[in-house]
Amino acid sequence: MKLTSKNLDQRLDTLYDAVIAGGGAGGLSAAIYLARYGLKCLVIEKGKGRSLWMQELRNYLGLDPHTPGRDLLKHGTNTALHWGADYLRAFVDGVNDQGDYLEIQVKVGKTNPMYVTFKAKYLVAATGIIDILPQLEDMQNVYDYAGYTLHVCMICDGFDMWDQKAILIAGKESQIEAAFVLNWFTPYITVLTNGKFPVSEAMKTRLREHGYPLIETPIARFLGENHQLQGVEFTDGSRIAVTTGLINMGSIYHNHYLKSIPELTWDGENLVTDEFCQTTHPRIFAIGDLKKGVNQVAVAVADGCLAATKIWRLIRRTHPPRVWTERVVAPEPLPAG
Amino acid sequence: MKLTSKNLDQRLDTLYDAVIAGGGAGGLSAAIYLARYGLKCLVIEKGKGRSLWMQELRNYLGLDPHTPGRDLLKHGTNTALHWGADYLRAFVDGVNDQGDYLEIQVKVGKTNPMYVTFKAKYLVAATGIIDILPQLEDMQNVYDYAGYTLHVCMICDGFDMWDQKAILIAGKESQIEAAFVLNWFTPYITVLTNGKFPVSEAMKTRLREHGYPLIETPIARFLGENHQLQGVEFTDGSRIAVTTGLINMGSIYHNHYLKSIPELTWDGENLVTDEFCQTTHPRIFAIGDLKKGVNQVAVAVADGCLAATKIWRLIRRTHPPRVWTERVVAPEPLPAG
Repeated sequence: MKLTSKNLDQRLDTLYDAVIAGGGAGGLSAAIYLARYGLKCLVIEKGKGRSLWMQELRNYLGLDPHTPGRDLLKHGTNTALHWGADYLRAFVDGVNDQGDYLEIQVKVGKTNPMYVTFKAKYLVAATGIIDILPQLEDMQNVYDYAGYTLHVCMICDGFDMWDQKAILIAGKESQIEAAFVLNWFTPYITVLTNGKFPVSEAMKTRLREHGYPLIETPIARFLGENHQLQGVEFTDGSRIAVTTGLINMGSIYHNHYLKSIPELTWDGENLVTDEFCQTTHPRIFAIGDLKKGVNQVAVAVADGCLAATKIWRLIRRTHPPRVWTERVVAPEPLPAG
Repeated sequence: MKLTSKNLDQRLDTLYDAVIAGGGAGGLSAAIYLARYGLKCLVIEKGKGRSLWMQELRNYLGLDPHTPGRDLLKHGTNTALHWGADYLRAFVDGVNDQGDYLEIQVKVGKTNPMYVTFKAKYLVAATGIIDILPQLEDMQNVYDYAGYTLHVCMICDGFDMWDQKAILIAGKESQIEAAFVLNWFTPYITVLTNGKFPVSEAMKTRLREHGYPLIETPIARFLGENHQLQGVEFTDGSRIAVTTGLINMGSIYHNHYLKSIPELTWDGENLVTDEFCQTTHPRIFAIGDLKKGVNQVAVAVADGCLAATKIWRLIRRTHPPRVWTERVVAPEPLPAG
């Protein structure tokens, strides 16, 4: 059932089998599996996730390579609702461990927000990450290219940059290392710091040895049309011609609501999980980009399957078996035909 | 490129980056990723795999829950070809470890078969399993229901059996254990041995305590129409009314071609792999149902991504970096606009 601020009070006394924080590819896959295991689950989606940004899902088996992420999310949301999951547009603010269950603190709405608490036996943390983008005065100019021809994921889109003139935008020196992987796809790489950090002599030498120019002047704007990058203009008025690029400025992790749980094990901002995506807190699972691993839709979707399957097992084993009480001797005979 | 017995001689001197044995969901996902990493790969598909049997792919995010497995395979095959993978209908017969590469022995065609050998740096074993079905005199009668309302996977289809009268067909006593998991979805379970094995008193008592009838008479035929099971007739002429069922008779593993490789580690018929689906032989990956884990399309698709990504890394690190040789000082300036 789709929940809103108007009807969610019907669910405040529900003890959900699982609340899924995040309605991206991983969270929706978890919801579909949980619902089809007959478990009560609620997806809480804040909107504007990473998969909504993807203009073309290139590598996910079964979908046309031009399918935008938003189509996958819409389809998956409808499918999860169809199988019986609940769904709410809201923001997960915190988690309280009550021993036998978790309290999930949620903020609903932006102007005059409502603060409510849901109860769940298990939490699936599927809130993912969002890529840090270069901050220009005109952010619309960034949005016009980011996710189209100015990519954020080399695994997803390296192929689409093949032998093109490309920029690599880094946020700190260590992120320039991506140039020495990106060169698998194209050697025509110009590295941009956007004027944000100094570059060591050692790195400058490495770039020079590879023939990759380094531009430390701040970016004024991206040039092009119809989302097709054609160049970059810098604040000194100079311009270069490029047709593609990779933004490698790190990610913001949507994990603040988990920071108060002492049992969790972190590897940087990623959660450490077992082969079923269970964290070191027995009631919390982490899937997709939030857990340590490869950040791909296909992996997040499998994670949702694995987390849901483990949750089903854990819940099933605490339930008394269902017996066939109406009859105990012979099954209903059919007349001979 | 689609290979056939007519044109495959063009590829017999090729050293593939990877040969993928098996063109099911896992193998096709691996092919799409490998091709998009710019690697030369060949999918060898024998046909009639497990995913071709699936009449409805219920749980795979992004596809309509009525999508048949064959549609996913067809779409994935075309996508893999589109990105540059090679594809051949043939049967993988054996693997020879040549140290620096593997020789993949292949049988092409059934009448007057051709025997050829492909060379590859890596092998992705994605040949999966096939479910053992009850053997009746009229196998068409089995095929009319298996994969429709007579299921082979409880995770996939348990939901669709909810509170229905169901049969559980086992091939040996230990497979009757599935009744005590299937009862999550329905308690109206009749267990059938099809006359193939004796059942211990201990198991008979457990079944009796749960109210699950046991029928040891051989099955004569399944009753119903349009793939909708309505009952079972036994060889003594008796009949029962059921609307669904689960076949739990084990699987045949398509892994014979790997049995000669001493470095592989087996867990029963499954291959033991690391988190990137790499086996204990450094040139062999195992994905999907062949590796230890949950047998689901979503997992196989992620496995294909992970294996391909690791293969790309291994190959990339042996290649000299591509440098920008044409110019070494400044990128091409664009005229000011």
